[in-house]
Formats: sequence, C-alpha cells, structure tokens
Amino acid sequence: MSKEITSREKDYSQWYNDLIIKAGLADYSAVRGCMVIKPYGFALWENMRDQLDKRFKETGHQNAYFPLFIPKSFLSREAAHVEGFAKECAVVTHYRLMNDPDGGGIVVDPSAKLEEELIVRPTSETIIWNTYKTWIQSYRDLPLLINQWANVVRWEMRTRLFLRTTEFLWQEGHTAHATSQEAIDETIQMLKVYAEFAEEWMAMPVIRGVKSVNERFAGAEDTYCIEALMQDGKALQAGTSHFLGQNFAKAFDVKFSDKENNLEYVWATSWGVSTRLIGALVMAHSDDDGLVLPPKLAPIQVVIVPIYKGDDQKKMIDEQVKLILEDFKALGVSVKYDDDDSRRPGWKFAEYEMKGVPVRIAIGARDLEKNVVEVARRDTKVKELVSIDGIANTVYVLLNAIQQSIYEKAKIYRDEHVTKADSWEEFLALLDGKAGFISAHWDGTAETEEKIKELSKATIRCIPLDNPKEDGRCILTGNPSSERVLFARAY
Amino acid sequence: MSKEITSREKDYSQWYNDLIIKAGLADYSAVRGCMVIKPYGFALWENMRDQLDKRFKETGHQNAYFPLFIPKSFLSREAAHVEGFAKECAVVTHYRLMNDPDGGGIVVDPSAKLEEELIVRPTSETIIWNTYKTWIQSYRDLPLLINQWANVVRWEMRTRLFLRTTEFLWQEGHTAHATSQEAIDETIQMLKVYAEFAEEWMAMPVIRGVKSVNERFAGAEDTYCIEALMQDGKALQAGTSHFLGQNFAKAFDVKFSDKENNLEYVWATSWGVSTRLIGALVMAHSDDDGLVLPPKLAPIQVVIVPIYKGDDQKKMIDEQVKLILEDFKALGVSVKYDDDDSRRPGWKFAEYEMKGVPVRIAIGARDLEKNVVEVARRDTKVKELVSIDGIANTVYVLLNAIQQSIYEKAKIYRDEHVTKADSWEEFLALLDGKAGFISAHWDGTAETEEKIKELSKATIRCIPLDNPKEDGRCILTGNPSSERVLFARAY
Repeated sequence: MSKEITSREKDYSQWYNDLIIKAGLADYSAVRGCMVIKPYGFALWENMRDQLDKRFKETGHQNAYFPLFIPKSFLSREAAHVEGFAKECAVVTHYRLMNDPDGGGIVVDPSAKLEEELIVRPTSETIIWNTYKTWIQSYRDLPLLINQWANVVRWEMRTRLFLRTTEFLWQEGHTAHATSQEAIDETIQMLKVYAEFAEEWMAMPVIRGVKSVNERFAGAEDTYCIEALMQDGKALQAGTSHFLGQNFAKAFDVKFSDKENNLEYVWATSWGVSTRLIGALVMAHSDDDGLVLPPKLAPIQVVIVPIYKGDDQKKMIDEQVKLILEDFKALGVSVKYDDDDSRRPGWKFAEYEMKGVPVRIAIGARDLEKNVVEVARRDTKVKELVSIDGIANTVYVLLNAIQQSIYEKAKIYRDEHVTKADSWEEFLALLDGKAGFISAHWDGTAETEEKIKELSKATIRCIPLDNPKEDGRCILTGNPSSERVLFARAY
Repeated sequence: MSKEITSREKDYSQWYNDLIIKAGLADYSAVRGCMVIKPYGFALWENMRDQLDKRFKETGHQNAYFPLFIPKSFLSREAAHVEGFAKECAVVTHYRLMNDPDGGGIVVDPSAKLEEELIVRPTSETIIWNTYKTWIQSYRDLPLLINQWANVVRWEMRTRLFLRTTEFLWQEGHTAHATSQEAIDETIQMLKVYAEFAEEWMAMPVIRGVKSVNERFAGAEDTYCIEALMQDGKALQAGTSHFLGQNFAKAFDVKFSDKENNLEYVWATSWGVSTRLIGALVMAHSDDDGLVLPPKLAPIQVVIVPIYKGDDQKKMIDEQVKLILEDFKALGVSVKYDDDDSRRPGWKFAEYEMKGVPVRIAIGARDLEKNVVEVARRDTKVKELVSIDGIANTVYVLLNAIQQSIYEKAKIYRDEHVTKADSWEEFLALLDGKAGFISAHWDGTAETEEKIKELSKATIRCIPLDNPKEDGRCILTGNPSSERVLFARAY
C-alpha cells in the first residue's frame, strides 16, 4: 500500500483527492472551484474525447462552435431552463479595466458597463436555438445534427476535482428534427453511444434509464441517463441525453415548413458528457496504490523499466528494448521506456503503479540471459516471468484481457450492489450499510421523492429502461406503485 | 463568376464577408463581436488543429488545461502585460441572477458580488505562471513544455469574422526553461513549426521575422512572427512566438534551484496561433467563385457528382463509384459522393466551387461507356476527360500538384509584392498603389514608427530574420539606418 495516499477504507473522499493530485491528473487553481487539468489528466481526456468524437461522427454528427457568452435575456425565454441555471452562473457586466484615479490599482471601468449582461454559458441550448432559427426553414434543413466541445461554467457552492468544478470541459450535442419520434430515437441512440463507450472503453458498467420529473434537465420533456456505481457504493450520473420536445423551438420561434408546406415547430434533443467522467473512471477502478486505468484509455499502456549494473548491461538491454518497441509500435501500443538513470527501479515501480499504467515490463540483465522478462499487471498485481520471444504480442493479448477483467470486476461489484428494499427501515439500513443501488417502490409523486431525499439523502437515480412492471407499495407512503425504481446516494 | 458574392475588385472586404457566409464557414451571432463557427468552418479548423497538435507533440510538448478566469490582481503583476490587455477584457463581477422583486424579470443578484472580479482570459500567461510556481522547484522540473487549446476573449471595438472577433479559439504554448538560450531556441523552434505549417499545409508563404518594440507582445522581451500577404496587398500576422525573458517568473516569483543549488528565476516563452488563420487561408487563395482550399486541409478533398437519366444509368454509375470510393479510401483521400437527386448537377458544381473542394469528378453515363470521367480542378478551373482506370491514383497525384500549385501562385504574388521604397513619396505611392510589403529604412525609434503609422496607416510588420545590413536613411526623418524593415498596411 502506498504511503502517499490515504486508504479507501480510512477515508474514501480523501483517497480520491490524494490520488488525483499524486497521480498528476489535476491540480487546484487560484480561482475558486476551478482546477488545472495536468498533462497526464489531459492525455486521458484526449483519449476519451477522441473516441467519443469518432462515435459522434459515425452517427452523422458534425462539430461546430457557438459563443461562450449568452445574453441574459436568452436564459429567461424558457421558464424551466432559467429556473435551473440562473442561480449558479457567472455574469459579465463590464468590458474594460482602468487605473483607479484614487490610486487603488487596477479597477473596473464604471463607464464600460454592458447594456445587457452576458452569462458565461452553463449549457448552450439558448444561444444555439437562437442560431438555429436562422438555419432552419424547411424540412430539407432537418435533421440538423451538431455537437460542440466546449468549456462551461456553473457556479457550484461545493466543488470537487473533476466531479464538480465551477468550470469544466464537456461536449454538448444539439439536434433538431422534423418529428417527435425522430428526436426520441436520437435521444436514445446517443444514450446508447454513451453506454457503450462507458462499458467498452471505460470498463465501467452502467445502468441505462430515465430520470424522474424532479431530476430532469431544466427544459427537457425527458432526461435519459447512464448511472454508474463507485467503490464506496455511491452512484454517479455519467451522461445524460435529453428529449427537449418543442420547448426550445417555441422559446426561440424555430419553425420549419414540412413537405405539405405547413409550418411546424422543430423537435429537439441535447446530450452531454464531461470531464466528470475522469472522476468516475478513477473511482470505479483504482486502489490504495494508485490509479487503475483501462488499457484502451491509458495514456501509457506499457512501461518498460531496465534493471542493470554498468554500461554493458544497459547497452544489452537497450538493444533488446529497441526491437520490442518496434513490435509494440506495429501493434499500435503506447509504450514508455523509462531509462532515466537518476531514479531507482523501485521508485519507478511505485510511480507507474500510482499512474495506473496497465502493464509493467521489467528487463533485468540476468533475466535476459534466460531469455525472459518480468511482466506485471497493474490491476491484479500479478507478476510473472515471460519469454521475450513475441513479448509484444503476449502483452497485447494481456492488455485486452486486463480491459475485460477490469470490466468484469466492476460489473460483479455493481451487480452485487443492486438490492431490493420493501420497507422504509430496510431502505435506510441498506443505505447506511452496503449502499449501492436500492430497488424500491415509490408512489410516483414529486412530493414523496423530495421527502425521501430529505430523510435519507438518497435520490432516484433512474427508472431503468425496460423496467418490469410489478405491483407494490411505496416504501415511504405505502401508496400503490406499479414498478420499482433505483435509489442511491450519489455524487 | 458567382452571382452570390461580391467580386474582389469591386469590394475586397465585402467579398471576404460574403464568402465566409456563403461557403458556410461561419455566421454572425447574437453576441456582439462573437461568431458561430459552422460545421464546414469547424472541420477546417479541426484539420489545422490536428496537424499543429501533432507537430507540437513531436517537438516534446504536452497539452493541459488552465482556468478560463483570471483574478483581476494577477493581470497587474506584470506592468506591460496589464497595460496591453486591461482595456479590452470581459469582467465577471457577479455569480448569480435572481427574479427582480419589482417585476423587472431576471436581474443580477446584487448580493452575489465577487470579492475580486474575474477576467475572462485574453491570454493565459498570468494564471499559468501562478501555477508554475508550484510545479517548478528544481532544474529537474525543467524544461516544462506545455500547450493549451482554448477560447480567449478580447473586447475588440471593430470585429470581423475570423480575423478579429471578441471570442476566438486558439492554442497557447507556455514553456519554462533553465537558461535564456534554451528559451530563445524554443521561441525560434516554434516559429519554425508555424512557418512550416503555413507553407506546407496552408500553402501560404510567410516571412519570418521579429517585431519592433512597438509591436511586441505585452510582457515579452522579443516577439517573433510570421507575416503573410493577402490578395489585396495587405499583410496579416499569422502567428507569434514570444521570448518572455524572466518577466513572468519575476512577476509570479518562480525560481528553480540549479545543479549547484543556486536559486534562479525561470526563463519563459509563449506562442500562439488562432482561428484567425482561417481568415488568412480564405484571403490568400480564394477567388470570385468561392473558396480555394489547399487539398491538405480541405474537409472534402474530392466531390463526385453523377450525371444521369433514369434508374438504370444511376445504378451503373453507383456501381462504378463504389469501386472508386474504395480506392480513395485506401489512399486516405476524403471524398463525398453527392447523389442527392433533389439538386441538379449545375447547382452542385457551383456549390462545391463555393466551398473550395479541390477536385470535382463528374461521372456521366455516356462518359462511362467511353471509360472516362470529367475531372475539374478548383484552383485553375481546368477540366479534362480522364480514363477511369486508376482514377483514384490519378486524382491523388493531382491533389498534390494542386497543393504545390496554390503555394507557387501565392509565392509569386508575394514575391512580386515586396518592394523597396527610398523616399517618403515613393513609400506613400506604393501603399496606395500596388501595396504589399514595402522594404524601407527607418531610424529605429518608436516615435518615428508611431508617426509613420499615423501618417500612412502602415506598420512595421517585421524585421526579417537574417536581414542584410545596409546603410541608408530613414524614409521619414532622414536619420541614419543600418537595415531595411518591412512595412505594410495590415489586418
């Protein structure tokens, strides 16, 4: 166990913070609630972004870029939307600084006050639908399938690295359709893209579902989500896809003429995932020694550490490594050969464990004589001596096995942490005990949902897709219910 | 000549605006001075970004991400820096909106005033160097080679699509070094990266040089630049690379202990290019029919248009195109087969000319019988019938020839527009006549430079690298000068 980070058992929350800092993923900044994403964390984000971007393009979407600023009046156009975002937004009121005539240094120039304040985008529905008004006239302009990679700002009161920061990076898809059904299909398609990415690339099993009214996106008719489970039994919303109905089309007067020349309001979706996914990835798999990264997303998939005495041994190892590196390159594996002679092998082993590099190869001069190297898996810590012949292929196969194995482990944990509760006492006992998702009956009202949250700090994470119907009684009110929903305490 | 856009001769500036809009590169937005980058324009930016990013990584840089907001006090730490940016920045003063108790709708909540105002970054030297203070302790932490892709905001009074917008996208490299020489080498290396990208990818010849004191970046010891020439004879600064000396290290107290354990201030560089490059690309090559894009950056390199009557002919063409598309794919060429039957071929020809697609292949049923297709180059408008055998290879070779040819054409124009002036009259006559770069003597003082700008609207674009020494007399003051510098009116 690493001495550098708190153990999960001792303090899960501190373990998480220690890990983010020690592994070099991010750092605190001088600006309240904003973080610096360090090169290693950003490389991880680039890998995630590139894969998502590929999937968006394969499903017919194009990237574009809309302004950072939103005129204040735009937010008010959609009633639920402004209600959801007005309380946590950064407001630009002036456009110039000046020297204080009274010698107080640099101050805001009062004469440079904006006529209308600008909001730093918390999300871009309003500015985008204001633009779509000029882009959409006829059914021939539809569907309009656009995505944006951007920074957004939400003035959160309590922030945590990656999980909840004032500024964060994300993508937001904004699509426009001729029919309700087509928009719903798009909403569900993008949920599927997110779910597959989470499971196949992040090795993180997710539950696909729909939100209750209380938890819906401000301005949506329906919010679909993927929910993941962290190792402390808390849930984390990993992505959302919203069916917006005609709400924004009505707010911004966006109509199209259909084939029969009738003017109709356009149907909309929006969907997004953010740098929050990095927090999810960290909490889903990592351990007390550091990060455990799935090979498909790891910035460094394999590290090679030479173990030698003197230049002759080093030279012999270098020659061998050169050949191995070529083989890895041909297989598209990202490898680092760390022959920095100012650090000892033990230091390097701990460092790459902390950074979650999936496979470590240690090459010793004496091993080489026996034609073997030591291969260590980060996830299970299993080490074995492996023939150097075809080592790149061996490790390539191992990387795929690790990817699968990390996923299986997380899935077993998740599946073991979906538990039914049939009474309020059982519900509370589970929350304070094994936690995880609790499948329970609820009477379907917003009031009861609110009350449950107040009393237990648990929220409805989702109503799973294809949820079986089952008659029962609400755990809180005893009123009749036709299906169970999933509750959890959540990030 | 397209009826849709103003001709260059009639009104170059209007031609540019028309072209940006009609080609679908960008659109105006509801926010003063901010633009929307449309999918076609963004695809172009992605191609530019990916290529630059590759070059940055090849030269050892890593990406990271720093906060959008800069505490107001940070700007003041470097005297020249705040002088340069304070007059044009967006200031966040509040973090919440509320319902007006007097019924005036949504208003800024006066109780949510920030203790210290935040500036939306106009550039990130200050927030980054404040962070580097915690990252750099010893010579072992150097060099620190970091780049960031980000949006920045400068409150410009007069804006133009891509060329000068309130918000724009860019990259900013920020590096830290142990010695002055290493920082200078980095500055020049990144200038070379920019110059090669401009010439090899944008097909846009540039002059490498150094700025006069007046035109230096606020806070730099030296600003290197690449300067391009537009078709109207005006210059455009396409990229800058700054040697910052120890200015920011001193402002943020960033020291490192060297191998002898002495504490020294760190040496710095910063360098950037922005979406402005898209404006440069458009103005460097395009004509009165639309964009002319260099094949290496064109989002669509080849468009195939079928010309047919009836389903049988269409089917025959489809089969042929299927084979051709496979060949193109193998060659890594980006092709669009536009068989939308609601548009006529003539409409499509004009559309793809407007969009600057480098090669158009028209496949007619009758041509097919003769085993030929019509290949049209966008740059020269030359059309010819070409055998369909090996057509993908033929076009692949043609694309490279077009890339080269566009560059040569721009280079000839540029070389013809570098003219010597030896008197003030000659200087003014050239500016109002053939324009371009004017190579003239200047007495080296900031006052004279300022005066020349006032009188002629021309600025010193740069002192070219490896500029020959030559005794002469300043065109304005007649005072002695030891070298010519390049003047121009500029974007």
